[in-house]
Amino acid sequence: MSSKLLVLLLIFSLNLRGCLVLASDPDPLQDFCIPNPLFGSIKTAHLSILPCKNSDEATTNDFVFSGLKSAGNFTDTGLATIPVNPTVFPGLNTLGMSFVRADLKVDGINPPHFHPRATEIAYVVQGRIYAGFVDSGNRVFARVIEQGEVMVFPRGLVHFLMNVGKTPATIFGSLNSQNPGNQKIPSAVFGSGINEELLQKAFGLSLKQIGTMKRRFNPKT
Amino acid sequence: MSSKLLVLLLIFSLNLRGCLVLASDPDPLQDFCIPNPLFGSIKTAHLSILPCKNSDEATTNDFVFSGLKSAGNFTDTGLATIPVNPTVFPGLNTLGMSFVRADLKVDGINPPHFHPRATEIAYVVQGRIYAGFVDSGNRVFARVIEQGEVMVFPRGLVHFLMNVGKTPATIFGSLNSQNPGNQKIPSAVFGSGINEELLQKAFGLSLKQIGTMKRRFNPKT
Amino acid sequence: MSSKLLVLLLIFSLNLRGCLVLASDPDPLQDFCIPNPLFGSIKTAHLSILPCKNSDEATTNDFVFSGLKSAGNFTDTGLATIPVNPTVFPGLNTLGMSFVRADLKVDGINPPHFHPRATEIAYVVQGRIYAGFVDSGNRVFARVIEQGEVMVFPRGLVHFLMNVGKTPATIFGSLNSQNPGNQKIPSAVFGSGINEELLQKAFGLSLKQIGTMKRRFNPKT
Amino acid sequence: MSSKLLVLLLIFSLNLRGCLVLASDPDPLQDFCIPNPLFGSIKTAHLSILPCKNSDEATTNDFVFSGLKSAGNFTDTGLATIPVNPTVFPGLNTLGMSFVRADLKVDGINPPHFHPRATEIAYVVQGRIYAGFVDSGNRVFARVIEQGEVMVFPRGLVHFLMNVGKTPATIFGSLNSQNPGNQKIPSAVFGSGINEELLQKAFGLSLKQIGTMKRRFNPKT
Amino acid sequence: MSSKLLVLLLIFSLNLRGCLVLASDPDPLQDFCIPNPLFGSIKTAHLSILPCKNSDEATTNDFVFSGLKSAGNFTDTGLATIPVNPTVFPGLNTLGMSFVRADLKVDGINPPHFHPRATEIAYVVQGRIYAGFVDSGNRVFARVIEQGEVMVFPRGLVHFLMNVGKTPATIFGSLNSQNPGNQKIPSAVFGSGINEELLQKAFGLSLKQIGTMKRRFNPKT
Amino acid sequence: MSSKLLVLLLIFSLNLRGCLVLASDPDPLQDFCIPNPLFGSIKTAHLSILPCKNSDEATTNDFVFSGLKSAGNFTDTGLATIPVNPTVFPGLNTLGMSFVRADLKVDGINPPHFHPRATEIAYVVQGRIYAGFVDSGNRVFARVIEQGEVMVFPRGLVHFLMNVGKTPATIFGSLNSQNPGNQKIPSAVFGSGINEELLQKAFGLSLKQIGTMKRRFNPKT
Repeated sequence: MSSKLLVLLLIFSLNLRGCLVLASDPDPLQDFCIPNPLFGSIKTAHLSILPCKNSDEATTNDFVFSGLKSAGNFTDTGLATIPVNPTVFPGLNTLGMSFVRADLKVDGINPPHFHPRATEIAYVVQGRIYAGFVDSGNRVFARVIEQGEVMVFPRGLVHFLMNVGKTPATIFGSLNSQNPGNQKIPSAVFGSGINEELLQKAFGLSLKQIGTMKRRFNPKT
Repeated sequence: MSSKLLVLLLIFSLNLRGCLVLASDPDPLQDFCIPNPLFGSIKTAHLSILPCKNSDEATTNDFVFSGLKSAGNFTDTGLATIPVNPTVFPGLNTLGMSFVRADLKVDGINPPHFHPRATEIAYVVQGRIYAGFVDSGNRVFARVIEQGEVMVFPRGLVHFLMNVGKTPATIFGSLNSQNPGNQKIPSAVFGSGINEELLQKAFGLSLKQIGTMKRRFNPKT
Repeated sequence: MSSKLLVLLLIFSLNLRGCLVLASDPDPLQDFCIPNPLFGSIKTAHLSILPCKNSDEATTNDFVFSGLKSAGNFTDTGLATIPVNPTVFPGLNTLGMSFVRADLKVDGINPPHFHPRATEIAYVVQGRIYAGFVDSGNRVFARVIEQGEVMVFPRGLVHFLMNVGKTPATIFGSLNSQNPGNQKIPSAVFGSGINEELLQKAFGLSLKQIGTMKRRFNPKT
Repeated sequence: MSSKLLVLLLIFSLNLRGCLVLASDPDPLQDFCIPNPLFGSIKTAHLSILPCKNSDEATTNDFVFSGLKSAGNFTDTGLATIPVNPTVFPGLNTLGMSFVRADLKVDGINPPHFHPRATEIAYVVQGRIYAGFVDSGNRVFARVIEQGEVMVFPRGLVHFLMNVGKTPATIFGSLNSQNPGNQKIPSAVFGSGINEELLQKAFGLSLKQIGTMKRRFNPKT
Repeated sequence: MSSKLLVLLLIFSLNLRGCLVLASDPDPLQDFCIPNPLFGSIKTAHLSILPCKNSDEATTNDFVFSGLKSAGNFTDTGLATIPVNPTVFPGLNTLGMSFVRADLKVDGINPPHFHPRATEIAYVVQGRIYAGFVDSGNRVFARVIEQGEVMVFPRGLVHFLMNVGKTPATIFGSLNSQNPGNQKIPSAVFGSGINEELLQKAFGLSLKQIGTMKRRFNPKT
Repeated sequence: MSSKLLVLLLIFSLNLRGCLVLASDPDPLQDFCIPNPLFGSIKTAHLSILPCKNSDEATTNDFVFSGLKSAGNFTDTGLATIPVNPTVFPGLNTLGMSFVRADLKVDGINPPHFHPRATEIAYVVQGRIYAGFVDSGNRVFARVIEQGEVMVFPRGLVHFLMNVGKTPATIFGSLNSQNPGNQKIPSAVFGSGINEELLQKAFGLSLKQIGTMKRRFNPKT
């Protein structure tokens, strides 16, 4: 019988891992709220406000993040990002902010993408970057920004980066949501499995071209 | 001893059913949050943001609601409503919206009521309806609206409907809270058990009249 | 021509009196914002966040309200209220709070009413008061409260007061919106001009009874 | 000199047309706020909370919208939309909601797009529609929905529609922001003027293909 | 094995005590949410929105607080405060408000402090009090307030009180957060263990003076 | 007469400079809102959401800030800050974020201070810094952070910095309010003019010591 109990308990705690995903981003309701490690790791796409451990158990290290000292892993387009939110930096939980380090190889790009739940402030740590965003009226605001300059990408608008300098470039971006989300246009549109006829009509591409795009952005297809 | 444990566990999980009712309506903190069926059904008057299942387990059907194809059950005043919130349509959870189908028989009415936590947009699917609301200065804004027209009822203000056409009428209402609440004036005031002397003085009615009202709106009394 | 200008200017400034009614209640965006007297008095039903004067011109008196030292004017039901919001106490503007002094003669009542945009905390300064509210499930929560006790009325729910003591009673109520609004059920429903047939059906009253109610709550009819 | 004044005044009022664009979507601060027509028409891309006229001047018609009775103008992809926000329906101002009628010819599509500031609830008035959205993890949630069914598109996520029935289809969509915004992926990405080299790299297309896309989505180029 | 289970359960429930600390202060998502006593007492510094019991189990007494009838315990500076939040008054949970009774002996003071998450409205129940606050520009707004007067302290700004009358004084303060927080400047700065060299430089005090201050505000050092 | 008009207009526009200070920090209601330069410069202590120019007139440069390339002017404590908000970087207006560059000479400090309306994320651009904050329970969380590390200071809590390295240090801080405010404890408490007797009692200092402090933090006294 106690094994039945154990099973119940396990089911219960397993389900809690993906849950207790409540609440919203506005003002914190307490000084801080360090997620309780008991609840395990939460998948990125479903990150949220997490249950906290007792404030007595919080330590200074809960509020310091040291994982941005070097670049992350580079993609095919010469981009390496380290997005930092409460799953990797517990101290952020409930405080309404998150951040990211983005590195671009020479000629590397960060493809058009947007954050559904946050404005982003991009501070150029080093390098020369063509950066910009598009507004709801399809107008592009883009130019080259350099070390020490800051560009703002308004909440929910498509934006992009390209290293146009002769050295690697690094951006420190901060966002006003603890889980801003990220929709990368090429893979969200061509790599997610949207009906091909719809894509054909939407982009005026041939079925063959759509097929090529789908294979590029979702190799598993 | 393990039976004691079981009891503890049961108490614990039973209580969780009515709880984990936290948070508020503003911006979602994740793409979506499908409530975990493990937590059972939640009573309407206490509906709230619910713990979610893992996002991997979400399916397309979690985001589609098919229960509005025909009218609900009619009341004495010729009204049938199907209010839709996360208890019946899990995909709404954390997204800050809910909706309702309201049908009115010929001459039927939706009595004066208000939603404590939402503005409502009423779209006339069919019929001719006298619709309106009252503002804080006791001014009524009311007129007949017809198929294809839309009326807005500002957050928290008393509003009402009456079918003044020769055919049944249908409204699709949407509200900007996942749990807008609903206080129906006749039953909230006369059917809830407020002190009779207070009601007498408030409405200038006789004790007998108040008694009649109470029996009408709360037959159990 | 300059007189045309003057007219234009006057129209412009007159319209500004009722306008610049923007924004919402959440966090202030500055330390404070004392409304600019240039914009004149704003009607109560349309009160809102007002344009401010330069912070240099703010004085200590802008943040102190002295008009609650004695009771206001009593109504027929033995109630006197002094609602305090930014129109009479400029320092409240943008800060998300307002308050009210309510006095009740012996046997006096505050009829069922609700605030569309705020929770209320009622502190009994003196007296014995039967106080309560109704929830969305038509359940009443009411009892007698006495000097020094505090009752909370959740946002948007119908509530009421009756002096059941042998002396006058006084309440200090505070609300978490700078313009909570107030819908008094008797006058909002019977004194606002809602269609009589609808009211008949909603409350199960005769046309004659509705007529009596209308005359009571809107003598102008 | 008075002509100088006139010029000043004109500059001033002209500038006010594009301004007084303040505030945010949360709770209203008053019952309602009908925009003052004196401030003229506001451009769609910059719509916002507008200054109001005095509440005494509000009329019932300010709260009813009658412009959805028939479909709007169709685009090349067989789509006609009538987005309704405070610029065309003043009563919505400050109330945190807006809505849209979308008609699709047989085989018509609404290309992938998203609303940066709102969740959308889509109610099928008539027809059979393949509808769906993509989450932050590039997973698509799509299926056919029919008359009377409702699908929810979470805030800020890419979504799309295609009429897969044998008759025209109509959707009534409601959104929880008075100005949700709309980024249509094809034109925002290929028709806005983003650097061609960046687009080449992002989508793996040839310079020629990018050129074709740009001409399609921005014929002026 | 069942003892292992018990341990697990205990760990689990112990951790829940300090957790389920989620969400934020804005609009409630349900009529009310009475914290479930099962979750035990929560430490003040980490107070937050708590899981609720089923609404059926709520009673009128959950919404009335009777603990303010007499003053609390006095400190060395002649101050006694009874801060009331959901840990002691469950009915406040999720409703966005809390309150406090503060008593001052003759010549007593409430030292400079601030509430990180709320505006405060201070109503003088009895006495004469020198009260004020400092804005972001280091300007002080202070004067004597008397019985029946109300002063507002804007969110997050340093404020203070001193009884300048000849009798004890009492304040009823209400705040627009259920957990406003409180940083008392003397003990937060000198009693918390900030590096002494930093304090020396910040305040221009000698190491000896800093030592005296530290001993005064943190006797354990 | 037209001169009278001119005077009226001037009064009007002068007053607008310090006003139109409305609204709150939450979600933007439009893509962006570049403040209209017509409204002149706004004083820092009263910064707020500003009226915008027409979106057609927005340029890319409105969204890029170039003034952080070198340190600002140093104070006596070896600190130089460049706070950046909509008054100096118009593109931030309505987007809910602002930022700051802080430079510290060797041994320099940023005295205990707090931001009433924002959480801060501090990214170390160069140097070694002792950094920390105090929570509502007077517990200090402090340690040395180095180049590439990030520390978070929760909303409204007292925090501080000291350069403990052998080279100058630079911080890039970002905050989730467009006008976070800043109360510097030493000058807010001792340099603002709070009653001396109150300060004596609050800090346990002699009248002479208070006098010394006042002269240091407010030389004008």
